[in-house]
Amino acid sequence: MHITANFDSGNIQVISANNADDIRLAIRKDHQSDFYQWFHFKLFAEAGEEHVMTIENASGSAYPDGWKGYQALASYDRETWFRVPTEYNGKELVIRHTPEQESVYYAYFIPYSYERHQDLIQSAQQSIDCYHELLGETIDGRELNLLVIGEPDESKNTIWVTARQHPGESMAEWFMEGFITRLLDDEDGVARKLLDENVFYVVPNMNPDGSVRGHLRTNAVGTNLNREWAEPSLEKSPEVFYVLKRMQETGVDMFLDVHGDEDLPYNFVAGCEGIPSYDDRHKELENTFKAAFLAATPEFQTEYGYERDEPGKANMTVANSAVGERFKCLSYTLEMPFKDNANLPDEDFGWSVARCQRLGEDVLTAMLAVSPKLR
Amino acid sequence: MHITANFDSGNIQVISANNADDIRLAIRKDHQSDFYQWFHFKLFAEAGEEHVMTIENASGSAYPDGWKGYQALASYDRETWFRVPTEYNGKELVIRHTPEQESVYYAYFIPYSYERHQDLIQSAQQSIDCYHELLGETIDGRELNLLVIGEPDESKNTIWVTARQHPGESMAEWFMEGFITRLLDDEDGVARKLLDENVFYVVPNMNPDGSVRGHLRTNAVGTNLNREWAEPSLEKSPEVFYVLKRMQETGVDMFLDVHGDEDLPYNFVAGCEGIPSYDDRHKELENTFKAAFLAATPEFQTEYGYERDEPGKANMTVANSAVGERFKCLSYTLEMPFKDNANLPDEDFGWSVARCQRLGEDVLTAMLAVSPKLR
Amino acid sequence: MHITANFDSGNIQVISANNADDIRLAIRKDHQSDFYQWFHFKLFAEAGEEHVMTIENASGSAYPDGWKGYQALASYDRETWFRVPTEYNGKELVIRHTPEQESVYYAYFIPYSYERHQDLIQSAQQSIDCYHELLGETIDGRELNLLVIGEPDESKNTIWVTARQHPGESMAEWFMEGFITRLLDDEDGVARKLLDENVFYVVPNMNPDGSVRGHLRTNAVGTNLNREWAEPSLEKSPEVFYVLKRMQETGVDMFLDVHGDEDLPYNFVAGCEGIPSYDDRHKELENTFKAAFLAATPEFQTEYGYERDEPGKANMTVANSAVGERFKCLSYTLEMPFKDNANLPDEDFGWSVARCQRLGEDVLTAMLAVSPKLR
Amino acid sequence: MHITANFDSGNIQVISANNADDIRLAIRKDHQSDFYQWFHFKLFAEAGEEHVMTIENASGSAYPDGWKGYQALASYDRETWFRVPTEYNGKELVIRHTPEQESVYYAYFIPYSYERHQDLIQSAQQSIDCYHELLGETIDGRELNLLVIGEPDESKNTIWVTARQHPGESMAEWFMEGFITRLLDDEDGVARKLLDENVFYVVPNMNPDGSVRGHLRTNAVGTNLNREWAEPSLEKSPEVFYVLKRMQETGVDMFLDVHGDEDLPYNFVAGCEGIPSYDDRHKELENTFKAAFLAATPEFQTEYGYERDEPGKANMTVANSAVGERFKCLSYTLEMPFKDNANLPDEDFGWSVARCQRLGEDVLTAMLAVSPKLR
Ligand SMILES: [Ca+2]
Ligand SMILES: [Ca+2]
Ligand SMILES: [Ca+2]
Ligand SMILES: [Ca+2]
Repeated sequence: MHITANFDSGNIQVISANNADDIRLAIRKDHQSDFYQWFHFKLFAEAGEEHVMTIENASGSAYPDGWKGYQALASYDRETWFRVPTEYNGKELVIRHTPEQESVYYAYFIPYSYERHQDLIQSAQQSIDCYHELLGETIDGRELNLLVIGEPDESKNTIWVTARQHPGESMAEWFMEGFITRLLDDEDGVARKLLDENVFYVVPNMNPDGSVRGHLRTNAVGTNLNREWAEPSLEKSPEVFYVLKRMQETGVDMFLDVHGDEDLPYNFVAGCEGIPSYDDRHKELENTFKAAFLAATPEFQTEYGYERDEPGKANMTVANSAVGERFKCLSYTLEMPFKDNANLPDEDFGWSVARCQRLGEDVLTAMLAVSPKLR
Repeated sequence: MHITANFDSGNIQVISANNADDIRLAIRKDHQSDFYQWFHFKLFAEAGEEHVMTIENASGSAYPDGWKGYQALASYDRETWFRVPTEYNGKELVIRHTPEQESVYYAYFIPYSYERHQDLIQSAQQSIDCYHELLGETIDGRELNLLVIGEPDESKNTIWVTARQHPGESMAEWFMEGFITRLLDDEDGVARKLLDENVFYVVPNMNPDGSVRGHLRTNAVGTNLNREWAEPSLEKSPEVFYVLKRMQETGVDMFLDVHGDEDLPYNFVAGCEGIPSYDDRHKELENTFKAAFLAATPEFQTEYGYERDEPGKANMTVANSAVGERFKCLSYTLEMPFKDNANLPDEDFGWSVARCQRLGEDVLTAMLAVSPKLR
Repeated sequence: MHITANFDSGNIQVISANNADDIRLAIRKDHQSDFYQWFHFKLFAEAGEEHVMTIENASGSAYPDGWKGYQALASYDRETWFRVPTEYNGKELVIRHTPEQESVYYAYFIPYSYERHQDLIQSAQQSIDCYHELLGETIDGRELNLLVIGEPDESKNTIWVTARQHPGESMAEWFMEGFITRLLDDEDGVARKLLDENVFYVVPNMNPDGSVRGHLRTNAVGTNLNREWAEPSLEKSPEVFYVLKRMQETGVDMFLDVHGDEDLPYNFVAGCEGIPSYDDRHKELENTFKAAFLAATPEFQTEYGYERDEPGKANMTVANSAVGERFKCLSYTLEMPFKDNANLPDEDFGWSVARCQRLGEDVLTAMLAVSPKLR
Repeated sequence: MHITANFDSGNIQVISANNADDIRLAIRKDHQSDFYQWFHFKLFAEAGEEHVMTIENASGSAYPDGWKGYQALASYDRETWFRVPTEYNGKELVIRHTPEQESVYYAYFIPYSYERHQDLIQSAQQSIDCYHELLGETIDGRELNLLVIGEPDESKNTIWVTARQHPGESMAEWFMEGFITRLLDDEDGVARKLLDENVFYVVPNMNPDGSVRGHLRTNAVGTNLNREWAEPSLEKSPEVFYVLKRMQETGVDMFLDVHGDEDLPYNFVAGCEGIPSYDDRHKELENTFKAAFLAATPEFQTEYGYERDEPGKANMTVANSAVGERFKCLSYTLEMPFKDNANLPDEDFGWSVARCQRLGEDVLTAMLAVSPKLR
């Protein structure tokens, strides 16, 4: 028996791995940070024997409530990821699984590697509708990649979409695959109509360093990027710095920032009701978008979500509030579950790659509804 | 040089094929009928040389106005179909093309073979959500296939979808591929929600005999099936007879009959405003459906379409009117173009396989909107 | 319960289909012929119930010994074909199967449709190394298609490969798929070297009429094409007539005619030892080819096969003898089993599509070995 | 303009990248070593403008002769890799390219990432014929993965195949993809026959640390693994240590060690003629293998290769000599070109992924020929 995590987005500490029925593990903290919750490791196992893996430090993680009702993901071939029985006892997370093969990967959610990120970017740039641009380098020296989709033109709206500020929320990049693929499909009517009226600035991965390092919430130096939008710095948050700089050049008519939520088993959005400039026009834009998204897919809902901000009480360091205020534009955080959509539960797979991608496709339908009103 | 049409859905008569610059052709009439407009043939050509193909009897076809603005389809590999320069002079249809390979297929629209039909049926039946049923045999002895999708249950709506009563409207079966594939995708939220509330009875090809024979509008004995819904007979219209019989067993809460229109370059629906029982409830269902379909895709529109029937003046031999009246249900004919959607024109390909399939997927979103109101 | 065979290469007669446990069937004779053995039909079944299908006229078929040890093929989706328990009692063939779906196809071997034939031809012609040519029309008016692969050049050998003179031997066209696909693969070293030294004239289906009609051995008018090579006629055997005419134009340095054998569970070749001109050079060519084919794949063997002709006693109406004699060239009939290769038996699938294709690829390796000696 | 190499197997140093027509680069040395030659970087370019990239330290690389006649590889999408004009002036290597997209990857050969390595391993283990085993951890803590293919049995030969001791020779792992995929194909006759007679111990990547680090020849601490087979150590060469230990447990009846050669534009093998125990039996095994490999593919040849060792003068630290001597078995180094096979040159792509894979498939045919003689 052996456990390893020395690969893209790997994260585990082995306390003891001597008995299959009592493997003791801990999740590493993000570098220079106290956050942790993302795990991703490979077990070399005895096929046919039950393995009980206990994550001892689960209760100290960033969102201990996230473990309630959570089922860990497993895969033999890194393509099909299924849920395995998982229990949280208020202190430890216990995963039980009887592997059918000699090795198994386990993860908090289906990993999205930097290799796949590069494939996504390079494949997209081949399109005549897509221009690939380097925004800058991260602290670890990785690329902060931007895809400009659609022919820029004064008359068109500018829509920015960013994902994975929090690197452990890998569903955000799976969402972007669906989003980008549909937007570049020249036989898709929604995509073609959208590109007539809008130009998209798309950052499929805001935090490649944290992603490769197996972080939950922060970049290479422990910065939570989604608290940096008031005053980003090249030292602590170059990722936000570069994006905000480019936003100022292009302007922003709509912003969508894609995330995953550790706790709530629903897809939902968090809007701008707490920013100073929030007004009826902004509210009307939000309502149009939400109604259209609801119509496009029952995976979206508006019943469950974060508590609404009091007027003027928004946290202005957060991306969607900062951008919404600065550009007086429709601005949303979109959250997907780590667990499942409780309205359409799937016992075997839970929230999955295909469902992330499909939601990324369907959000375009909602964008089309709001597009004529954005300016 | 040689021209042949002896294959599934082939249709052409060669008047003379001696000079590449003046090939004279005619379209065969449907068997025991005067209708004709569908063509499908293969040219053995001299690659690199322009071939001018004149269909001499174009003006006598069922819908001569359909030739205006029409561009014929061509394919070297029977997978990629592109448009070639085509002109209608009020009498003849002239197709000009310089083949890049030794042989080329030309067709009125992208053909959908009986072999592919069988593959579609057999692949669908593999799903746990799908039950394959033989409704009966056609006059030529082919299968009239039904797919029942979803677990039948008293509490659920019954939705019938039929396609290709008019065999030359092959776009209707491409549409069904998208429709069925999405409906059986168990990671698609719209599909899953629909199957919670509805059972679908799907006939992807109402007229296999006409399809294989290369007909435009009729079955093996020249019957226009879409004028048989008042009194279908085993002799002239067993296809309608069997479907209507099965409908009476299941009841119908919604009906969609999928077609192609030779003339109008738009997707549109024709409803039940002219049937005796049309009332506010019916109108409200229609409005809900149309609004949701409009929101789902800009390929659909409601500006262009057939003239609306006067109250009580509907032709009750037509499927959607007959079914709408008999079952007092939402009942639509859906029409797709042979040419293109003029709202989103594509010079190279026009209305295409991918667009048919996508429309078949998107109609499910509209059905979901209307589903709670169907009873 | 219902049985139908009205599709490409369908063949069955229903005597009675009232009880699942006693379905009585017969195979139709080839049109204007007494040959029969090919069957291909679809059963609409009660899933989960055993169906016993008895072919009553099995003992009168062309090769009753072929039924010994034979297992019928079945498929739910027309893609995966598996073997089902089958017994021959010296008179009747009894197939027992408990379907897991609502409909099942059964066949003597995996069918290869005329639609797929056209796809194969059209896909091949797209290659820069391939030229598509119409040899003529069959009696039913279908295309007799030729693919010329490689740039013709005086210095190169001319290799002819024909398949499926006997239409029920569909393995021959599956073999051609592998053969053609590899020959057109420009990253395959064997293919590239072969095309430096040889031009291939390939007829993937010598008998499209018989194939579509569901025949075992004959064309549209009951002619066994492989007895027509002494004196083919446009009336009875245009398929052979056109090929032989074209052979006379090109010359032939090697000929391979691909078949299936109803009886022997082996792959083997039958050569020219009985033709008048057989000599040491011819024998040496045969030995080189067989040794290389043996080295390329254990699916081939030389222990089992037809009895060798006495010197001078070959049947000169048979393709390989006629061509071998007329062109003084290496000339082989290649036989594949309907059952399995008993040297590498596979209980679940027997001789299969993938194995046919792979054999078609591997024969190219043997051709490369003999290529320098062909002239 | 920007150049980056911070990804799997990236290697470049930017000296200056200010003018597209004079970009100055250098290749980094392997860590703790003087070897260098592998490069792999991404250029953010102005599409449509010629970029001239000069690698200044080319003449100091491990195999300066390797640059003669070499053409660098480029890719827009990391899937299709094509050759671009490259010149070596005896001192510097100059690559000229006018990109058609905004970013391009360049590499010494087509990279094979650690992500893909894991996919290969995990996909293989899914087979019933394959058992996945961890041999140990590398110095950087990566997995040294072994695939055991075939059911171990006393009566069977033991064949070891290792690849990529030299990490810059990525063609070796592409070769392994073809090798493993065919060996696990249960409809391939050669594979099935081989698994009846042999068990395979396969190490697709002997040097994952060097691979990820973008090294040419050494592991994480600068050790050339292919000089460690006399006395491997856990400190300097754990990769060899673990493999040799496992070999001693299993015994070895044949060994193949897969490499790439920087200089010679051919595929060839280097054998054991210089080891002390070399005798007629060993020679006969070599001859059988070479003859069969020659027959299987014209990509292999025996005319060009390394100079043969004098009797008794083999370098016994090299894998194939050490293993050949210790186990008295057929033992080969297999070399593929970085450039092309000059016997079958391809201007556009040179030696390619598909050709590596196909060679890996074809070597199995040669192994089958020698298999009965191995003991
Ligand atoms: Ca581009
Ligand atoms: Ca089913
Ligand atoms: Ca061609
Ligand atoms: Ca296994």
